Amino acid sequence: MRSHYCGDLRAAHDGEQVTLCGWVHRRRDHGGVIFLDLRDRAGLVQVVFDPDTQDAFARADKVRSEYVVQVQGRVRLRDEAVRNSRMATGDIEVLGTGLTLLNTSETPPFELDERTAAGEEVRLKYRYLDLRRPEVQANFRFRSRLTAAVRRALEAQGFMDVETPILTKATPEGARDYLVPSRTHPGSFFALPQSPQLFKQLLMVAGFDRYYQIAKCFRDEDLRADRQPEFTQIDLEASFVDENDIMAITESMVRDVFAELLNVTLPEFPRMPFSEAMRRFGSDKPDLRIPLELVDIGDLLANVDFKVFSGPANDPAGRVAALRVPGGCEISRKEIDDYTKFVSIYGAKGLAYIKVNDLAAGNDGLQSPILKFLTDDAIQGILERTGAATGDLIFFGADKAKIVNEALGALRIRVGHDRGLVQGDWAPLWVVDFPMFEQDDDGSWAALHHPFTKPSCTPEELVANPGAALSRAYDMVLNGTELGGGSIRIHEPTMQRAVFKALGISDEEAEEKFGFLLDALKFGAPPHGGLAFGLDRMVMLMTGCESIRDVIAFPKTQTAACPLTQAPAEVSSRQLRELGIAVRKGE
Amino acid sequence: MRSHYCGDLRAAHDGEQVTLCGWVHRRRDHGGVIFLDLRDRAGLVQVVFDPDTQDAFARADKVRSEYVVQVQGRVRLRDEAVRNSRMATGDIEVLGTGLTLLNTSETPPFELDERTAAGEEVRLKYRYLDLRRPEVQANFRFRSRLTAAVRRALEAQGFMDVETPILTKATPEGARDYLVPSRTHPGSFFALPQSPQLFKQLLMVAGFDRYYQIAKCFRDEDLRADRQPEFTQIDLEASFVDENDIMAITESMVRDVFAELLNVTLPEFPRMPFSEAMRRFGSDKPDLRIPLELVDIGDLLANVDFKVFSGPANDPAGRVAALRVPGGCEISRKEIDDYTKFVSIYGAKGLAYIKVNDLAAGNDGLQSPILKFLTDDAIQGILERTGAATGDLIFFGADKAKIVNEALGALRIRVGHDRGLVQGDWAPLWVVDFPMFEQDDDGSWAALHHPFTKPSCTPEELVANPGAALSRAYDMVLNGTELGGGSIRIHEPTMQRAVFKALGISDEEAEEKFGFLLDALKFGAPPHGGLAFGLDRMVMLMTGCESIRDVIAFPKTQTAACPLTQAPAEVSSRQLRELGIAVRKGE
Repeated sequence: MRSHYCGDLRAAHDGEQVTLCGWVHRRRDHGGVIFLDLRDRAGLVQVVFDPDTQDAFARADKVRSEYVVQVQGRVRLRDEAVRNSRMATGDIEVLGTGLTLLNTSETPPFELDERTAAGEEVRLKYRYLDLRRPEVQANFRFRSRLTAAVRRALEAQGFMDVETPILTKATPEGARDYLVPSRTHPGSFFALPQSPQLFKQLLMVAGFDRYYQIAKCFRDEDLRADRQPEFTQIDLEASFVDENDIMAITESMVRDVFAELLNVTLPEFPRMPFSEAMRRFGSDKPDLRIPLELVDIGDLLANVDFKVFSGPANDPAGRVAALRVPGGCEISRKEIDDYTKFVSIYGAKGLAYIKVNDLAAGNDGLQSPILKFLTDDAIQGILERTGAATGDLIFFGADKAKIVNEALGALRIRVGHDRGLVQGDWAPLWVVDFPMFEQDDDGSWAALHHPFTKPSCTPEELVANPGAALSRAYDMVLNGTELGGGSIRIHEPTMQRAVFKALGISDEEAEEKFGFLLDALKFGAPPHGGLAFGLDRMVMLMTGCESIRDVIAFPKTQTAACPLTQAPAEVSSRQLRELGIAVRKGE
Repeated sequence: MRSHYCGDLRAAHDGEQVTLCGWVHRRRDHGGVIFLDLRDRAGLVQVVFDPDTQDAFARADKVRSEYVVQVQGRVRLRDEAVRNSRMATGDIEVLGTGLTLLNTSETPPFELDERTAAGEEVRLKYRYLDLRRPEVQANFRFRSRLTAAVRRALEAQGFMDVETPILTKATPEGARDYLVPSRTHPGSFFALPQSPQLFKQLLMVAGFDRYYQIAKCFRDEDLRADRQPEFTQIDLEASFVDENDIMAITESMVRDVFAELLNVTLPEFPRMPFSEAMRRFGSDKPDLRIPLELVDIGDLLANVDFKVFSGPANDPAGRVAALRVPGGCEISRKEIDDYTKFVSIYGAKGLAYIKVNDLAAGNDGLQSPILKFLTDDAIQGILERTGAATGDLIFFGADKAKIVNEALGALRIRVGHDRGLVQGDWAPLWVVDFPMFEQDDDGSWAALHHPFTKPSCTPEELVANPGAALSRAYDMVLNGTELGGGSIRIHEPTMQRAVFKALGISDEEAEEKFGFLLDALKFGAPPHGGLAFGLDRMVMLMTGCESIRDVIAFPKTQTAACPLTQAPAEVSSRQLRELGIAVRKGE
């Protein structure tokens, strides 16, 4: 039905007869001539109808925005004076000779040009209109190209695409499962996978050697912080490998796709132990583009007569840290108040600071509400350790380590952006040597990654001192976002049982939940490991979108609903009866 | 951990030091020397340990089947006399110098060599062992390569990979939906998609122009006839196209993958109207490799004094047909009895036949239990119309057309195979001009494809005579299997409403179920159409497997359960409470 895409026409097509199909993006009347901007997936082109072509002119006169038309015409160069350099097709126009109306359109509920005019709810309800916007479509074209590049890169490294089940058993990632009632086994339920973790390990036991999948995963969580009930992972696993192999494979894959899609050569991927990342940046996914660092000063303040500092300084679970902002003396009182509010989101009870107005002037050159609580030695120690210079500002965090890390870690990013300190475009990083477990408030241990991650110690050491055990896990971080994470897995039943034991999982429970994995490890499981990337987040980061919803064709709202299809919806009582379930009333 | 894959070693590697990883496939002691067949994903290689290499020999002595080992050694040519031409690596062996035990294995519950030894239940329970068999792995490698080839072929034609939701609204494909209770909207349910049909149409309305997806689909049906609760479609859709465009695109894709993966140049794809396929082959997916055809003879038998024939011959819903088998006089009485049993599966109440022992001898040359019921004219007419020759056998079907078509259609395939009549390896075909609707027993109309298929008539004609309406649908058939099906879709709200009306769907119901589609059609929907292939079936056909379970990594049983993970399983009452549902007791 078409000879060319609208957006592909260029000066080189001058004189050619073309047939185009698309949507009327805009229609203007000017000097007795009708101008249509015709839009298709490749872009826009201007079509001109003059009254000479009586029939076509009459039809063009009747079309409105978003009508669907087929146009015949001849490409011609525009006059120099009216060339439009902001349009890819701006050197030419099409002189229309025929027009067929393929479909009409009601007036869209929002302008396709202006993003901000319509709220998210209405844009999701009419998602098919929102998706018509060229800049939105570009993101999906990017996503498709990225997926293809990822597949190519992995297949070139011998990875084999294998599909794992969506209807499966509850998996142990810790989040809430989506359940699917079974009709043929009333009272029983499938779970949608939170990841293909156990299946990919089974594929390694099966000798598949190198597996990958672009896999849909599901988590029934409360949708804070830009999450979606279903999301997509680039999931991979390999046998007879160690962490260096997996890091090399995936780093090379990420390098390839950045080079191919963004023409970017990524810099070195440094490796940083988890402990160092927390110490220097308060985060296990530090944004290394921001040259601000946390400095521990607890030892300097353990004996000051100021409980806000000395309390956490003497608490084994506490932390007292400083964050020096070069040139921060410029930060106004009001800005500091804003930052104080900002860190309170993370539980910080305040935000102490010192402005170093004049380092040479001793305490007189310092400006701070807390100066009076500190000894001269402590002040001197802080200035030295942070490397403060005249004009700098030092922020303080003192609380449980978790709160200090989150608050100063986030403040570091915020101040870095506010003050234009961001250096470079892309700062990748491997974070390694994670603790195997973290302790919950009730003293029990939980796996920091998941319980199939291999510890770097022996089973005996693990059980004797779970808190000291490190894991063979690794996270790839880019610009402060975790792109993906993985680990070498446990391949021996004894180690797997030791981890379950440390987690307080009884033999019976282990057998019931993971019996098939424990079985599999008995029959010659090879050493193996892998990694999973969050595809949505990777696309978001690479396209510069603000939300993963911008790179998912039909996303859900914050309450996990779809305004377009009205899902979820009520179903018939017959369906429920067939499934052997009932809806609880009044709950 | 390895320098080469076991299965990749060849005579060209003679003299090289190698490090291999894999499973002990077999271990033999022979003349004081230990032979290990080491297996990895690439294949097997023989490793020899002689007592000179004391340490390695001692370790090799202790390994058993399916132990996981790393081996160092040197490749050497085998003596001419012991070369093994049935093994890809049979010209060489590896002289082992070191062996590291990576994991032990219990004795597997079944031999990995012998397919038939173990039942399906135990093979699915230990699926990771069953998947170790080289011939099974080859199928999955094929599947991965096929998927990659399909993606390449479609992307080269401008198709863009877009993911559509898994948690969505009940779709109208007619089969039973899998439901997912919503926690955030108690009493409401998501449905897993039976296909991405409506989403891909919305993507066309959105101007995506060419979409494809390798998409997981779900149907909660009773698993007769080799179906699975979840299966995979190659799904595609394009805008501004007619049926010839879609057929050309997909035919080219299938040609490409057959050429690339099987080195097969597919013959022409003839097009056959649905009515012709039913008339000649009793099937809408005829296997054209079999040169047997049904011939209508109802008109010849309308007046015979034999109700078995004259009844259906005079019934507008009946059919009387003959199937001539060249040389069929050889078919024994016992074989005919078997065939009679066979057609009874399809509801046929018997299987009449005539053996043409000697055409020249008139009725005396014929052998048949029904001859006495037929007039000479009828007999003569049958012989002429079927083109019978001496030595042929003619089978008869007389019943409701549906039963005759299914019974003789299936018999045609069976006899064709039994008598070695199959011609050629691959016989592709397009079936076109399907009826828009089929009538249920209660007289109501149902869509033969789905209600979004575009009829080839006007909305007025459609409503006036639904039974006469043809659709713009097309099925790709290969060797009697439907590889895929599709259609041009309705893009105008008036036509869509006419189809709903013909189907007896009220405006309210249409609005509730498909309101979002009807809305979308109002805002400038382009002409569009598409097709979906069954990927599992395509892989099965191309690999020569007997069941789609052989090409799905973790399939379900006939009762939709997974013996490996024990899914579906009971869940905690806390989970059910959170979802606002309860299990009905005693039902």
